[in-house]
Order: sequence, then structure tokens, then C-alpha cells
Amino acid sequence: MEAPGRPGADAVRASALGKVVVVGVGLIGGSFALALKSAGAASTVVGVGRSVANLDTARRLGIADRTWTHDQHWTDELADADLVLLATPVGQLPPLFAMIAPALGSSTVVSDAGSVKQDVITAARKYLGAALPRFVPAHPIAGSEHSGASAASATLFRDRPVILTPIHETAADARERVAGAWTACGAVVSALAAARHDEIFAAVSHLPHALAFALVGELARRPDADEFFRHAAGGFRDFTRLASSHPEMWRDICIANRSALRIELASYRAALERIDRMLAAGDAGALERTFADARDARNAWLAGHADNGDV
Amino acid sequence: MEAPGRPGADAVRASALGKVVVVGVGLIGGSFALALKSAGAASTVVGVGRSVANLDTARRLGIADRTWTHDQHWTDELADADLVLLATPVGQLPPLFAMIAPALGSSTVVSDAGSVKQDVITAARKYLGAALPRFVPAHPIAGSEHSGASAASATLFRDRPVILTPIHETAADARERVAGAWTACGAVVSALAAARHDEIFAAVSHLPHALAFALVGELARRPDADEFFRHAAGGFRDFTRLASSHPEMWRDICIANRSALRIELASYRAALERIDRMLAAGDAGALERTFADARDARNAWLAGHADNGDV
Repeated sequence: MEAPGRPGADAVRASALGKVVVVGVGLIGGSFALALKSAGAASTVVGVGRSVANLDTARRLGIADRTWTHDQHWTDELADADLVLLATPVGQLPPLFAMIAPALGSSTVVSDAGSVKQDVITAARKYLGAALPRFVPAHPIAGSEHSGASAASATLFRDRPVILTPIHETAADARERVAGAWTACGAVVSALAAARHDEIFAAVSHLPHALAFALVGELARRPDADEFFRHAAGGFRDFTRLASSHPEMWRDICIANRSALRIELASYRAALERIDRMLAAGDAGALERTFADARDARNAWLAGHADNGDV
Repeated sequence: MEAPGRPGADAVRASALGKVVVVGVGLIGGSFALALKSAGAASTVVGVGRSVANLDTARRLGIADRTWTHDQHWTDELADADLVLLATPVGQLPPLFAMIAPALGSSTVVSDAGSVKQDVITAARKYLGAALPRFVPAHPIAGSEHSGASAASATLFRDRPVILTPIHETAADARERVAGAWTACGAVVSALAAARHDEIFAAVSHLPHALAFALVGELARRPDADEFFRHAAGGFRDFTRLASSHPEMWRDICIANRSALRIELASYRAALERIDRMLAAGDAGALERTFADARDARNAWLAGHADNGDV
């Protein structure tokens, strides 16, 4: 087998796709379509979504050649599709799996872009039936707090990581096709076990989102919130950027990964309790060591990994 | 009396200073000196600091005309100084007040740049003696996670808020002189009661710093920290930017403002407990409302106040 991120000749050939169906033509789905098209790696992109206005935008921006809303007969597009990317909030994946299962062609490969993998895999096992081996769970590590087709960009995934979390049923050629498509988008593909993926992203992504939402939400509840916000500055702006993220998307991620997230939240609350004890004791030395260790760790990370893209 | 931020003719005249002594020639003190000089608002700047290398940098960059280390007879410079800015970490202010008190000239005005005001005022009352009316507590809302003279910039304070927290003893002409100097630096000067200042900045600045340090520190303690950091991306980078801040400076701020900070920390921990209960209950609706309220509040803030500068 090839090393992750270095697909062999099969993957490169597999990246010349015919029809690609993107369900959820937002920042991720839209950028995937634009990147494939700009690489000449897909001949037709069909977009499926909830909002007519967003689908109109997608066609206007050249993201999709044709589009369907969820209530139309869009599953007719699946039989001869090479690849279906489900790029909706993860809470919508179970009913989507159920809807697409009977309509998939025998060689149609399905992937997703969810930030949580175990919950998505559970739903796929439940609903995809015979198509399960052609489902390749994936998580592109890119994005921003912006959403919708109008935020899409052909270069969003360039040099960004895409993590595949294949299961033992996953067919090698399906995995190759998905890896090839992301490689064509300029992404760097690797693989991780789904459980480990969910632990890691609970800590480095889902928790920070929840913390940022919590901080802004706690301030906003106050009767004198305006006076606080009036004095907030650049540090607050960066710290809370994640709180401008899509509420529905992050609700779904937090619920889907809640067992890992609650473990991280408990560790973090314990860390805050330690800091509170240092403050209560006026223990300047312990506080400075805590801050200095954090700064050293962050600066070491920045020096090595600062190009890791967004979200 | 003039409105805050719109100093009258006296303040404009007062901004033409002779000698200015800056103790702590870092990002804030260095930028203050550069801004005054570039506005032609000070004829001589004397820099005082701990590190010979940093003071050499300050002279080389034109921040200071001459410099002294703390162990030299720098207090001899104070008798004929128009303004002394204490721009060190706030923990160093009590001994500095004690050192400068006997050496100040009868018309020398003293100010500081601390992010905490009540603790600084308490120390000033204790040590400044007859000079107390000529002390003007101040907090420029600017900066970044970078530190040292080499990070200084003549434009750091342009259009940035500077908050004065005068006490009832503060002389009107001293306040005018400090307001005039900051106005000459391009800053927008206003006033606030010290206690209210400390409550507000505990919430919008000190707490976010502590939270960012806590998150990175908690990850860094883990045996498998590397694997977590390897997958951290842009959201983590922004969320944790404050954790690259100066540990000693923030230790001092957190200790000095610990009663207000502990109140904010308790409110925040209660907010995290609410989120944990929503996760435990799988209450997607409550989670989405929490996230949506936070996003709405942040986006409204961004639309109105996003130019509030750094830190």
C-alpha cells in the first residue's frame, strides 16, 4: 500500500472524475467543486442544497453546472455519479445516507467532510447497506467562520490536510478515488483511526469553538453587555473569532462528538480550577510557570505547524 | 470641563513636552516614545530598563536619546522631567513608586500604562506621598503578543483608546498633560472609574488571556501533546494567540486584578457547566440557541467596534 498523502498512479488516474454530486454547496462543498474544476479533475458538478438563493449563487460562480433543492428528484443524479460529497452539517448525514442508499450506482463512491467521524460512521453503517464499502469518511482541515457558496474558493484546500478515517469495510479503490480527488484539490491526504481523530479534534477544534461561543454568550447575557463589548479589542476579537462560526454546524459537531468533547471540557475546567486556586492563593510563581509553559508550547507549535490552515 | 477625548487648548499646549522619562522601554513604552518624537511632542526621551541589550536597541531605533539600567542613578533624571511614564509589568510599580517619589521635580507628572488600575492606585497612594496629585493612572488599549523595544511602533496608538482613571486627588493640569501626550500619539482619550475599568477589562481582556494560557498549557501537559498540536489549525492559532503573551506581564495583571478576574472566571465556569449539561442531555436546541446568540452578539460587536485595536 502507498503511504498516506502520496497516492500512486491509480489515485492520479482516479482523480479524473466524470460526474461529482456535492450535497451542501457551502464553503467546503463549494470550494471542493471549484478546486476540482480548476484542476480539470471533474467534468460535471451537480449541486444539491436547501436554499435556492445559495444554489443560484453556486451556478453563477461556476461551482455547479446544475443544481437541485432537497425536495426535488436530485437522487436521480446518483446512479451515474463517480463521487458524492456530503458537505452538510453532520446532523443531516443520517437521513442523507438513508435517502441516497437506494439510488447510488454500483461504482458510485460516497464521502463526507464532517469534523466528527465515529458518529458519521455509525450512521453510514446503519443506512448505507451494500454501499458501505464505497463510503470513505473524510475530514478536510480547512474552512473559516464564513459560510455559504459565496465564501467558496478554488484554493481553500491547497496544502491543507485532509484526514481519511477508513473502516475495515472500506474498499481500496474507493479510498483511492477520494484521496485522488482531494489531492487534485491541492490537499495533503493522510489517515487516522476514527476514534483517535475524534479525540484530537475535540481538543484542538471543537473545544475552542465551544469556549469562544461560551465567552461571547456569557457577556451578551449581561444587562450592561454593551459597556463590556465597547472596551473589547483585538485580543478579544481573535479569541472569539470562532464564535462567529455557523451555529447549526457547530451544534451538530458538538452533539455528534459529545463524549470526547465532554472529556476535553472536564480537563479544561480542571485547568481553570487550578488557575483559580493560584489566583486565590496569590501564587504568582505558579501562575507565571503556567503561562510561560503555555507560551513556550504555543511558540514551538507556531514555529513548526503554523501553516496548518484554518478551523 | 472638556469632554473626554477632546482636550482643550491647554491640553494641546501641554503636549509640547520637554524631557520625558520612560521606565520600561518595551512595546508600550517604546511606542509611546516613538509616537511623541514623531509628533514633535517631546524634546528628549530618557529610557530606563533592565536589559542592556534592549536599551541598546531602543537607542539604535531612536526611541530614547539616552538610557539607564535600573541599577544606575537614573532617578537623577526625574527632577527636571515633565512626564514620567511607568511602562513596566504592573508588579514592578510599587517599588518604582517608592524609588521615584523622593526624586520627582515639583512639576513632574507621573503616569503608567498598566492594564489594572485599582491595585496601581493603591500602590501610588502608599508610596508617592506629596506627588500623588501629579499621578495620572492610565491604560492604553493597544499592544500585541510581541514585546520589547524592537516591537515598538510610532503608530501603535493611532486611533486607539487610552483610558484615564483619575482619582479625586488628581490635579487637573496633570491629567491634561497626560491626555495631551496621548492625544499627540494619535490616541483617543477617555475616562472611567478605576473599579469599573478593572471589572470590564477582567472580562474582555484578562479572562481571555487566562483562558488561552489554560488551553495551551493543558494540552502541553499531555504525554501525547505532539499529536494534538500536529492537528491544530487556524482556529486554534487565533484562539490561542493571547497565550503567546508575556508571562510575567500577565502574571502581574492577573494577580493585581485577581478579585475581579476570579468573579469573571466563576461566571465563565458556570457558562461551561451550562454547556456541559446541554451536551450531557443531548440538548441540540439549547446548544444552537447559545451558539447563535453568541454569534449574533459578536457580529454586532464586529460591525460597530472592530477597529478597537489590539490586546
